[in-house]
Amino acid sequence: MKIAVDAMGGDYAPREIIKGVEKALDSFDIEIILVGNKEQLDKYVREKDGLTIVHAKDVITNNEPPVAAIRKKKDSSMAVGIEMLKRDEVDAFLSAGNTGALMAGSLFNIGRIKGIDRPALAPILPTLNGATILLDAGSNTDCKPINLFQFAIMGSVYAQKMLNVDNPKIGLFNIGAEEEKGNELTKQVYDLIKNSHLNFIGNVEGRDIAYGVADVVTCDGFVGNAILKSMEGTASVISSLLKQELQKNIFTKLGAMLIYGALKNIVKKMDYTEYGGAPLLGIKKPVIKAHGSSKEKAIFNAIRQAKTIVEMDVISHIQREIELIGDDISAAK
Amino acid sequence: MKIAVDAMGGDYAPREIIKGVEKALDSFDIEIILVGNKEQLDKYVREKDGLTIVHAKDVITNNEPPVAAIRKKKDSSMAVGIEMLKRDEVDAFLSAGNTGALMAGSLFNIGRIKGIDRPALAPILPTLNGATILLDAGSNTDCKPINLFQFAIMGSVYAQKMLNVDNPKIGLFNIGAEEEKGNELTKQVYDLIKNSHLNFIGNVEGRDIAYGVADVVTCDGFVGNAILKSMEGTASVISSLLKQELQKNIFTKLGAMLIYGALKNIVKKMDYTEYGGAPLLGIKKPVIKAHGSSKEKAIFNAIRQAKTIVEMDVISHIQREIELIGDDISAAK
Repeated sequence: MKIAVDAMGGDYAPREIIKGVEKALDSFDIEIILVGNKEQLDKYVREKDGLTIVHAKDVITNNEPPVAAIRKKKDSSMAVGIEMLKRDEVDAFLSAGNTGALMAGSLFNIGRIKGIDRPALAPILPTLNGATILLDAGSNTDCKPINLFQFAIMGSVYAQKMLNVDNPKIGLFNIGAEEEKGNELTKQVYDLIKNSHLNFIGNVEGRDIAYGVADVVTCDGFVGNAILKSMEGTASVISSLLKQELQKNIFTKLGAMLIYGALKNIVKKMDYTEYGGAPLLGIKKPVIKAHGSSKEKAIFNAIRQAKTIVEMDVISHIQREIELIGDDISAAK
Repeated sequence: MKIAVDAMGGDYAPREIIKGVEKALDSFDIEIILVGNKEQLDKYVREKDGLTIVHAKDVITNNEPPVAAIRKKKDSSMAVGIEMLKRDEVDAFLSAGNTGALMAGSLFNIGRIKGIDRPALAPILPTLNGATILLDAGSNTDCKPINLFQFAIMGSVYAQKMLNVDNPKIGLFNIGAEEEKGNELTKQVYDLIKNSHLNFIGNVEGRDIAYGVADVVTCDGFVGNAILKSMEGTASVISSLLKQELQKNIFTKLGAMLIYGALKNIVKKMDYTEYGGAPLLGIKKPVIKAHGSSKEKAIFNAIRQAKTIVEMDVISHIQREIELIGDDISAAK
């Protein structure tokens, strides 16, 4: 299996990307093609079995307008990586760079799975006793009901393969538990999912997500991003407060040593980087977005995730599922 | 000053409501009218200076459709409390009951401040080093740009009075920092706020809210509720994990004792009940919604908050602000 990795995307590129790649090569039986500015990469990269560098002179930054950037910068690491995946030179492409550009580039050059109107960004969130797939997490704003229905279908297949759940529990994100709650969008989506073959558990509220009541939660991308980032921000602030408080005096410092293992367990449990990145579900080939702040471990886990997505043939399974229920989707439009 | 309190609303009514009321009477120079089923209340209420009971035989539960419930149940504690405020028999009304019914009843019977199209639920969120007002937090879904602009104006006045900030920093909730990011709604709101006299700091992302980058964050109620509940859920899950982990063995238990004060500080800092409830900003008189899970302390703090809103004359200040910039608002429509 060959995975192309964007060496230049993300806050800690290229150093941490390379570290993650090297660790993945040590752990898995795969080949990795690092795409990026060869001159810069040569400073850090050691020769290694299974590792190839493909030169790309440009970089797309996070501040560039995504669509314009991916169209203009044909020689960027991201555009070159997408092109390699398009030509089947690799089995998957991974980038921690500009999310919008990655989505736009994948859409233009690789295309959508037939029957999917808008692909979704689908991260896995850590929960109290497991994990939940949230989609869309930010790629699609102003969604239509059919989009959320399709997200739910793709999420269900992805949860079967990635979370190893037989009949994933599908929740519709809403601001109340009752069927009639919500906005115009959720009221319409509710019936679509309820009348489908999916294992629909109804509305899921913000408070319930972290408790892991559903395997998959579907929502508009604006809302999904709000949820994801609010959860991240809260966890991060609590962790900052804890660090501050535990440094206050000799007793708290001693206490901190005694509970070090306990805190480490919690951090590990709530750490999104444990699950890798977020695939762009609905794109015809495996494209994975790693978090912009990914370091070695997150990149390593995202590569493992890309490998699983290829091995499990997630995309063919989504394709088959969409074909099976094509009539449901047409009827819903 | 007289404050009416719904004795029957919320998960811990009437016992915890009464406890909070008693504590408030011991602490502040106010009168409180407890509205509820007299027979039930007599079991718990001791005679006390400043405390009166007004009988209301019905209760509106959280599971009832809000509009129908408030229309039908004229003898409910909530409807009676709203009626008392309407007739100026009290200066403010507080309830931990059905949010939708409270908003509908307040709208129908008390009405909106002139120039405000949709009142907003405006809780104060604890942040890393202070607090942020988030509005709307769930009363208004499918908002128009003018609604979010009005929320921002009301939030600014409220922050001046409640958070004691001279020129509150106003943020627009969005899923990216750049001006062109977001959905159809935010793109239009951005210019409205930017061109106003408000101290606009631009887009604020989910991750930034908990860090307290803005004094006021304006958003659609569906999104606001998603943010609020996701933050609550995350904090609650982390706290559960911490409790679990600290009970694991003799060392963690000892450690837990040593850091007890530190943990208490964090809990206090992140505790939304410290700030009381959320006023329905835009209603012509002070109506305050306390969290459904309010216990003694939350009710006590919500009463203190009601008192401050009355003393600071928040509503007249909002009225004046809206009159001053009436032309801006008309132009924006």
